[in-house]
Amino acid sequence: MSTFNFEIEKKTKAGGRAGVLHTPHGDIKTPAFVGVATKATIKGVSSSQFKELGLQTIIANTYHLYLSPGESIVEEAGGVAKFMNWKGPTMTDSGGFQVFSLGTAFGKKVSKFQSEDVSPEEATVLYNDELATSHGKLAIIDEDGVTFTSHLDGSLHRFTPERSVEIQHKLGADIFFAFDECTEPTAPYEYQKEAMERTHRWAKRSLAAHRQNFEAREQAIYGIGQGGQFDDLREESARAIGGMGFDGFGLGGSFSKKYGENSLQSALNMLKFLPDGMPVHGLGVGEPEDILLGASFGVDTFDCVIPTRNGRTGGIFTNSGKIIIENAEFKSDFGPLDPDCDCVVCTPNPTTGVFFTRSYIHHLFRTREMLAPMLASQHNIRFLTRLTEQIREAILNDNFEKFQDDFLKKYKGK
Amino acid sequence: MSTFNFEIEKKTKAGGRAGVLHTPHGDIKTPAFVGVATKATIKGVSSSQFKELGLQTIIANTYHLYLSPGESIVEEAGGVAKFMNWKGPTMTDSGGFQVFSLGTAFGKKVSKFQSEDVSPEEATVLYNDELATSHGKLAIIDEDGVTFTSHLDGSLHRFTPERSVEIQHKLGADIFFAFDECTEPTAPYEYQKEAMERTHRWAKRSLAAHRQNFEAREQAIYGIGQGGQFDDLREESARAIGGMGFDGFGLGGSFSKKYGENSLQSALNMLKFLPDGMPVHGLGVGEPEDILLGASFGVDTFDCVIPTRNGRTGGIFTNSGKIIIENAEFKSDFGPLDPDCDCVVCTPNPTTGVFFTRSYIHHLFRTREMLAPMLASQHNIRFLTRLTEQIREAILNDNFEKFQDDFLKKYKGK
Repeated sequence: MSTFNFEIEKKTKAGGRAGVLHTPHGDIKTPAFVGVATKATIKGVSSSQFKELGLQTIIANTYHLYLSPGESIVEEAGGVAKFMNWKGPTMTDSGGFQVFSLGTAFGKKVSKFQSEDVSPEEATVLYNDELATSHGKLAIIDEDGVTFTSHLDGSLHRFTPERSVEIQHKLGADIFFAFDECTEPTAPYEYQKEAMERTHRWAKRSLAAHRQNFEAREQAIYGIGQGGQFDDLREESARAIGGMGFDGFGLGGSFSKKYGENSLQSALNMLKFLPDGMPVHGLGVGEPEDILLGASFGVDTFDCVIPTRNGRTGGIFTNSGKIIIENAEFKSDFGPLDPDCDCVVCTPNPTTGVFFTRSYIHHLFRTREMLAPMLASQHNIRFLTRLTEQIREAILNDNFEKFQDDFLKKYKGK
Repeated sequence: MSTFNFEIEKKTKAGGRAGVLHTPHGDIKTPAFVGVATKATIKGVSSSQFKELGLQTIIANTYHLYLSPGESIVEEAGGVAKFMNWKGPTMTDSGGFQVFSLGTAFGKKVSKFQSEDVSPEEATVLYNDELATSHGKLAIIDEDGVTFTSHLDGSLHRFTPERSVEIQHKLGADIFFAFDECTEPTAPYEYQKEAMERTHRWAKRSLAAHRQNFEAREQAIYGIGQGGQFDDLREESARAIGGMGFDGFGLGGSFSKKYGENSLQSALNMLKFLPDGMPVHGLGVGEPEDILLGASFGVDTFDCVIPTRNGRTGGIFTNSGKIIIENAEFKSDFGPLDPDCDCVVCTPNPTTGVFFTRSYIHHLFRTREMLAPMLASQHNIRFLTRLTEQIREAILNDNFEKFQDDFLKKYKGK
């Protein structure tokens, strides 16, 4: 029996909800922002700071940890949480997205070969992308799985649904994901449908592989729905994955604005076709407006690299919108990054009585000092964990829509 | 009246001592390791961590802060301590070393021109170092000061003793240094003598410039003695600088082992020619064996980039010697970096109950994660602050020589 379960405390009329995910390593109060710890570390943030940043859980990456240090080392350490010195719930994603994006299938036109038709060696020749070929990067999808080259050394590897589950069992996170094919949102209908159907077959195999070891492991497995921007495919995928008996549901796809404003909206429509009370995770959803939109539909957890990626380039979340701290206007601005913020960067430190000013952080970015991305990432993470805390509070107080309106009015400066 | 003074609590027969430096921003118990915060930040370490790492004070750099963000910004912030969000004593060095090293005079054969003989533009042509010239780097020394190009953008700047003091007054550290010429240790006797005598004239001018503003400022000024590896010059320099009325003495020169084992020893001989009770700072002294040697002669404070520079490349101090954590032998080593260490990296975190293992830090270095240099630098800094704490304890307990022997036996593996 898994000790994993999801308790919904309150729902909005539109479907938003506040709840608690009970996991073997602790509870996650939802909605919750999940820190991205790709290689078992959030870039620029120590696990000893997670609690003070309001992080309840993190998501690590199967593809990256498989390549380095290898899942056996993580298993020997006692699982990904203990490996990274974090006492709390963890997630791992399946590696599907990374296999396709770092193996350069994602964002390119993937050539699909039946494994019996062509060997991986021949495929390199057949692959019609000069840049990818010159970099030795390639992902070859067949019915059974994906053959790909490491982004580190070009060596050849293969993931199948069963292998992904095997690795994720060793990584030992509380929640992990079925192996899926993540398509480019702009791919045509026919390809989206084909990839979605393959993802469904892989989901079944992932679940079967997990259940073989179910008794021995207290891990929950989420299935991932796909379908690109096509409403009928999204519905079909939600019904299919929702009906398989997964512990939760992952909203698959890429919701970057470069694919159009509607890419997230189309995925969110899936939620009405899922079984009641199934927890939902928004993969790669992290813009404040997207978290609000997702939460309004009933997405319970969100992960995204945005706070740390922005943090490394000096993009700072504030309640009045994003600022670029390296801009000249902040050179002698001795205020905090965000006057509304309660993070360790913006509030007076108990030992100093003061806080890190915009002027100082501007200087750190200008001089390329390591403390710059550290402080900016910490602030940005807290911005998103606080946002989900506020959403939760608003839902519990029957106040979500007003909170959403007020927040967006200030955030978008309208 | 300055609130700065130095109280010696106990001396060893050989001249080592335990004491307290009283400064306007707090006390420094000596011997003490001083963190290097060149650009008002210790690389990879937040000022909110200084206390837990045992740091009592840091040293920032005049050259770097003058170039960015500019001393006026730091002054407007309330001085370097407040600028970097640190509530405690601070030091600034004069920028002399950086003008010469980053302006590429240091380690090269410096062409010295009388300022009336040659314009900076012509000097570039005259300067006999192809690499330096192609990089547009140059430092030109004349009796009045140094003209140098910024390592950032090649722009032309000029430091004189008076200008260095003016900048350091604005930076507002508790202790700052007179502007000096830092020579290459291997430079010939004639040049060492000439540079030393110029440094003495600059020291007098620095002190005079400081005294013009003395009443208004509670800053202590240290003079720097030079003389390379020549005992007679070192003695002459100690007597000259020691007799000028400085608040303290800086041991100048470079003590890197590449200049021979004796470079530090020769400088330490200066201490017997200084006025009784004058506090002494070892500039750039940070190897554990050098700190022990320096402390045995009566050096009170030490600063060095070693803990963070090593930290960034995976060099880890342990009581049994240095280890390179990226080496394969540590891949599945689940022990702490140093079993004898009490730092935040090596001891169980209150929230996790565990510590950061060698295996995890090995993985972080292998995958080039930012947390790697952060954890390694924190550990290395604590290694050196603990070493100075132990030295202090040993001196107070009449036990210094035994401590030194025991430490070095273990550290050098003999």
